[in-house]
Amino acid sequence: MGGYDNNNIFAKILRGELPAHKVYEDDKTFVFLDIMPRAPGHALIIPKAPARNLLDVAPGDLAAVMATTQKVARAAMKAFDAAGITMQQFNEPAGGQVVFHLHVHIIPRQEGVPLKPPATFKETTENLTAHADRLRAALNAA
Amino acid sequence: MGGYDNNNIFAKILRGELPAHKVYEDDKTFVFLDIMPRAPGHALIIPKAPARNLLDVAPGDLAAVMATTQKVARAAMKAFDAAGITMQQFNEPAGGQVVFHLHVHIIPRQEGVPLKPPATFKETTENLTAHADRLRAALNAA
Repeated sequence: MGGYDNNNIFAKILRGELPAHKVYEDDKTFVFLDIMPRAPGHALIIPKAPARNLLDVAPGDLAAVMATTQKVARAAMKAFDAAGITMQQFNEPAGGQVVFHLHVHIIPRQEGVPLKPPATFKETTENLTAHADRLRAALNAA
Repeated sequence: MGGYDNNNIFAKILRGELPAHKVYEDDKTFVFLDIMPRAPGHALIIPKAPARNLLDVAPGDLAAVMATTQKVARAAMKAFDAAGITMQQFNEPAGGQVVFHLHVHIIPRQEGVPLKPPATFKETTENLTAHADRLRAALNAA
């Protein structure tokens, strides 16, 4: 397994060097929307501390990421009138990982609507802004 | 969302009423192999306490499940000479959930080998026993 690259795009988002449709942050975690969502409201939960993936993340950071993941999943059910949630997390290229900063995918699901294939659909900025607003409002109301 | 059904098959496995290819257990978690693996070594990590899924699990049980999940992921890399790990967790039927006791999937991946579609391939008892032995040995060596 490779190491941690401080110039991966999520590290740049955390440093404010790249923009993101931010939804939430606390001391240890940061949440923003996937710009190529597999369904509307597809969010990414990441630790603020460097971690390549599940294999190297510090246990305390993993626990914080999962606590935030649960909050986001619950909020996403309300924000997007979802019927379910699919959680995914990929480790190393063979495992499906593309950006090498640990991230958990939370994807709101509707009955009978399949996931879009990964990285096939670029959402509009207008929709990403609206979806981030809805998810943030549901988190704040929780 | 429905409630928790004490007669779901994972509850029966936890009570010893159904057999399982057990890999690991501690105070709060239990690990066994999926009998319809999407790749060899596909393991399921569950809390011992009742929880339907991510949306209702107690935070302490979720943290315990994820700590065990990390251990299993690391051990699976060694046990199956894996190049990566895919983690999945499904919530409610629309989210892909079939058994309504929280479970995290840890699937060892090899370069260029796609996941089998869900629930399409029933592994032999002989292979499940061998894979459980390998994963258990890697966990014990960690």
